[in-house]
Amino acid sequence: MNFFDKFQNRKKELNSLLCIGLDPEFEKLPESIQKSNFALSEFCISIIDATHEFAVAYKPNIAFFERFGSKGFEEFEKTIYHLTSNYPNIPIIADCKRGDLANTSKEYAKYFFGDLKVDSITLSPYMGEDSIEPYLEYKNHAVFLLGLTSNPSSSDLQKLKSSTDKFFYEEVIDFSKKLNLKYKNQVGIVVGATHPEELKKIREKDAEQVFLIPGFGAQGGSLEALLPICGKNSLINSSRSIIFASNKSNFQESAHEEAKKIHLEMKKFYD
Amino acid sequence: MNFFDKFQNRKKELNSLLCIGLDPEFEKLPESIQKSNFALSEFCISIIDATHEFAVAYKPNIAFFERFGSKGFEEFEKTIYHLTSNYPNIPIIADCKRGDLANTSKEYAKYFFGDLKVDSITLSPYMGEDSIEPYLEYKNHAVFLLGLTSNPSSSDLQKLKSSTDKFFYEEVIDFSKKLNLKYKNQVGIVVGATHPEELKKIREKDAEQVFLIPGFGAQGGSLEALLPICGKNSLINSSRSIIFASNKSNFQESAHEEAKKIHLEMKKFYD
Repeated sequence: MNFFDKFQNRKKELNSLLCIGLDPEFEKLPESIQKSNFALSEFCISIIDATHEFAVAYKPNIAFFERFGSKGFEEFEKTIYHLTSNYPNIPIIADCKRGDLANTSKEYAKYFFGDLKVDSITLSPYMGEDSIEPYLEYKNHAVFLLGLTSNPSSSDLQKLKSSTDKFFYEEVIDFSKKLNLKYKNQVGIVVGATHPEELKKIREKDAEQVFLIPGFGAQGGSLEALLPICGKNSLINSSRSIIFASNKSNFQESAHEEAKKIHLEMKKFYD
Repeated sequence: MNFFDKFQNRKKELNSLLCIGLDPEFEKLPESIQKSNFALSEFCISIIDATHEFAVAYKPNIAFFERFGSKGFEEFEKTIYHLTSNYPNIPIIADCKRGDLANTSKEYAKYFFGDLKVDSITLSPYMGEDSIEPYLEYKNHAVFLLGLTSNPSSSDLQKLKSSTDKFFYEEVIDFSKKLNLKYKNQVGIVVGATHPEELKKIREKDAEQVFLIPGFGAQGGSLEALLPICGKNSLINSSRSIIFASNKSNFQESAHEEAKKIHLEMKKFYD
């Protein structure tokens, strides 16, 4: 099944937009887990098992695994395997923000889509179409291009004005739409929850493209403000506020409760 | 020793600008090597041992390792370890093109600079200063931001015009210079050899910043055209034309000869 259909099915099933970000920052893990030989995957698997009933999608960020090199990648693979074998109906977005020459992107695509079979990946748009196309050859998979990111320094380059009086991030969104005409429904866009006004404007122009909206919760975006403007075809990501709801032995219960709370708030809005 | 000094020392020692790119695309490796359990690292180590006397720097591209996940990362680590323990005077640029939120970049920096101790890394500039700053806290290390990349689709976004009539890649270069005022000599820029006119213009304005110039050789840039315009503070990268000079059992000799040929051509120009 392609990413878009999988996302639509899961969204209808739960009547919410919650994407749960798996960012296993080692120093923030419960002490008991830190002692394990496979702390990152053990933690992620525990979080997944505690929250799956509320997850429209999962978004593991590979940096927290790559921090430990080959050993960390082994744990990334364990985490993905746990997801694909136990929860095949929940789409996975590998948050990697890769972006390289075509012959190089082909290698990344082989790993993430060919071997690991994650449903989609985040990419930096900066190098243009030929750096993205190798991923789109995998027709059941999607990519999310960074549009307007949630961090304060997003203004450094993304908010520069172009000669046609658009912000540069708007040029990137236009670019992603052009790609979508060519590669049907395979290109989503990342817009941070920390930019509600911009998000509203972008959504008013186009309700169809799939948006990945991080930055709600720990980074400061509010759910109340977000829900009326993010549109139906969005995934609203929450990482730290769910996965680190507690770092004590009750971390699974706490993550479950926090995910449930957000889920119900979203569901109330969409019901 | 910091990256800039290490680069200057090595450049003076060899009187050339040759950076050798390690892009071990599995399908292109000699058949005898493909059969090894550690094909990628065995190949890279053979190439390094055959070419080190001509290398001002090495630039391994991590995608060719990441294609094999945790196993590939193990081979990346072996390759880096071989370099740092046998050729500590040759700077290493990890070609990763990462770029993420500050708390995430911190994790990448811990791995590449803290653990592996590579001298520098390539990054996508798109997310702005706070996504780059965690790397620059490692004062002996440098980053290369993507400016004008060597691929044809670099024109999609990098050559859009800004409201001040600059190309967007020029805005990125200005941005990198601002960072350099704050973080002394830690920020280089990537400009592809496939854009000689643009490169000439950029270099005329500033001869000091370190440029990483890929795209010479297999991607089409000519050395003759490049040398007079790239300036002294550049690394001209060649990957495929050296490492895949032959895929037969004589691949080490062929790589040695090709690296020597380029080295001598550069040396002749700089002597």
